[in-house]
Amino acid sequence: MARIVMKFGGTSVADLDRIRNVARRVKREVDNGNQVAVVVSAMSGVTNQLVKYCSDLSPLHDAREYDAVVATGEQVTSGLLAIALQDIGVDARSWQGWQIAIGTDTAHGKARIQSIDGSELIKQMDSGQVAVVAGFQGIAPDNRITTLGRGGSDTSAVALAAGLKAERCDIYTDVDGVYTTDPRIVPKARKLSKISYEEMLELASVGAKVLQTRSVELAMNERVRVQVLSSFSDLPGTMVVDEDEIVEKENVSGIAYSRDEAKITVRRVPDRPGIAATIFGALAEQNVNVDMIVQNVSADGTTDMTFTVGKADLARAHAALGGIKSQIEYGELLEDPNVAKISVVGVGMRSHAGIANTMFRALADKAINIQVISTSEIKVSVLIAAEYTELAVRALHTAYGLDAT
Amino acid sequence: MARIVMKFGGTSVADLDRIRNVARRVKREVDNGNQVAVVVSAMSGVTNQLVKYCSDLSPLHDAREYDAVVATGEQVTSGLLAIALQDIGVDARSWQGWQIAIGTDTAHGKARIQSIDGSELIKQMDSGQVAVVAGFQGIAPDNRITTLGRGGSDTSAVALAAGLKAERCDIYTDVDGVYTTDPRIVPKARKLSKISYEEMLELASVGAKVLQTRSVELAMNERVRVQVLSSFSDLPGTMVVDEDEIVEKENVSGIAYSRDEAKITVRRVPDRPGIAATIFGALAEQNVNVDMIVQNVSADGTTDMTFTVGKADLARAHAALGGIKSQIEYGELLEDPNVAKISVVGVGMRSHAGIANTMFRALADKAINIQVISTSEIKVSVLIAAEYTELAVRALHTAYGLDAT
Repeated sequence: MARIVMKFGGTSVADLDRIRNVARRVKREVDNGNQVAVVVSAMSGVTNQLVKYCSDLSPLHDAREYDAVVATGEQVTSGLLAIALQDIGVDARSWQGWQIAIGTDTAHGKARIQSIDGSELIKQMDSGQVAVVAGFQGIAPDNRITTLGRGGSDTSAVALAAGLKAERCDIYTDVDGVYTTDPRIVPKARKLSKISYEEMLELASVGAKVLQTRSVELAMNERVRVQVLSSFSDLPGTMVVDEDEIVEKENVSGIAYSRDEAKITVRRVPDRPGIAATIFGALAEQNVNVDMIVQNVSADGTTDMTFTVGKADLARAHAALGGIKSQIEYGELLEDPNVAKISVVGVGMRSHAGIANTMFRALADKAINIQVISTSEIKVSVLIAAEYTELAVRALHTAYGLDAT
Repeated sequence: MARIVMKFGGTSVADLDRIRNVARRVKREVDNGNQVAVVVSAMSGVTNQLVKYCSDLSPLHDAREYDAVVATGEQVTSGLLAIALQDIGVDARSWQGWQIAIGTDTAHGKARIQSIDGSELIKQMDSGQVAVVAGFQGIAPDNRITTLGRGGSDTSAVALAAGLKAERCDIYTDVDGVYTTDPRIVPKARKLSKISYEEMLELASVGAKVLQTRSVELAMNERVRVQVLSSFSDLPGTMVVDEDEIVEKENVSGIAYSRDEAKITVRRVPDRPGIAATIFGALAEQNVNVDMIVQNVSADGTTDMTFTVGKADLARAHAALGGIKSQIEYGELLEDPNVAKISVVGVGMRSHAGIANTMFRALADKAINIQVISTSEIKVSVLIAAEYTELAVRALHTAYGLDAT
């Protein structure tokens, strides 16, 4: 007998038939002798409607009221799933964030979980009752409802699994696991049976949006074993686990891409100390996140500074840099939104040389020019022209031997 | 400066424009120097949708889960109205039943309010903040959400007004007050400026569904002055107050009618002790409410027993009476769903003779046959064939001098 947490996202509970389907899946785990807590999202579309109500009434609405409004989406699903479970003979009850309680800070709209009191839940689960928990929500110290921000139900599930000391946390979604790359681009992409937290984090941060980044960080910190699997099939999913649990480590686990960034080059920057601090300080002040950065070797007393920012931040970045032109007297500002970041990720990189070189050669073979390079311990990323995205992903997938046979 | 409670029903908050309209009405009271608590219903249609979800999943669903689901309707409105108020410069916040707390018993789906802790609300209202309270809901001793049953937001508002010791409770609805009778039948019906609790109760119980009966009982017990008025006009409404506040008492305040009842006659019942107990005991066991009862004078050792039940209960009543046929050996069972109950109501009856006689004469003048008569201290009701309903109401409205001049 194991204690497990199952989490179902919005498309998995989109209508009453799908809620009944979820109930049957939960019953199967109960019939297998497991103690089960289920975390549910709002029925798909509901949260968007509620957010729109708030925004239409007032663009700058009170985040505390926003939270009271949007948290109802998960409340409805939790009650309905409890009814569906009871209807097929499974003892169940719904739990709202404030009833458990899931304590958070007061950062309404994007609160962070501070504590979970699992004692009452564990007592009820010990007596055989399934706990159906409204995801995405908690309660602040002042007794007001909070929400965790978009995708927060993943975080609810992982935090609950930690609080309940669950054996694993199954995240049911509309894909059946984590793949070596996007199967829409590479039909030969393979589903991974296991992936490490660190790899999952790197993949999530470069656009493979299977799990919310924060939930993976939490799982890593709390050592919660997470499984990503489909609520519409019976196939096993992908286990996200500690690196030590993965016996045969691949050099490269996956290829990810992101077209959400834009490239900015500041030409002919005077090459003296403090210039980088001025540029990136101005961007930080405008809340612009900078990702890849490269600075050319200086010639004739000036240098070129190239970096990437989120596409949505491009206008703000432009304004910020315009504001310091008189201060640092750079030459011109070049902006290119038509770029893509391609990343190869794998914990095996730590012990294997030549991973980056394989990447550069594979791209050169396809005549793809590399604009910027950045690396981390388990990731190599390159910036290329966006039109080469699919070609690059396919070439790298083959080059690292990831194609299914 | 007064402390008032304002309550807005589902049609008054049906969409964002109407919520903005409500916000402006609340602002007007605030600008007049009043401390305001607002009680809101769900946006119209929302509760029906949520109820349907529960029923579709399981006809016999857990009332505790039903409550968790349907209470979200009022939660959404409370948050949205708080946002709309803030948007026009009024300090406001939403309050859920469990936050106040509005304590109820554990009769989920039709809970009764046991206690309201108004201290926190009063503190916030003293500081100038409008309290936007989700109606229809409370919290049971076991920390689970309860709802008060259909129309329960009226009861929430009156209970809150009592708990806050408010000067009055304004119930905004889609009619602009209580009329001497249904204006759709009698165009000359007059709006009453004042009506006593007792009269309002009698009118509500015979089909004038302006206020939920329980909310009027509560207002009477707690001496809460209630005003019924329209959220779509600026006309003064009808005050529902203690009889002592009404200086000029009319003999008859209003004429009400109900077509929701059916007549049952049990023919040739043996005239011996215990028979009535057997008949009405069998009906009570099936949860059939009996209203008017008349028993003819006995002849030849048998008697006829006539009474009315709700039309919706007719099939259950038929079955219950069939089950005791062998026991009391009555003759035949006659059922007639085509009846209407016409009532004249007025506290002036207490001190004036001849009220009933005026009724009987007016109906006789129109050749309307009276089937059953019942009376209370401030009401005379008769059962007639349903096809005479409008004719009878108009004749009585004129006979008692209620027509507008």
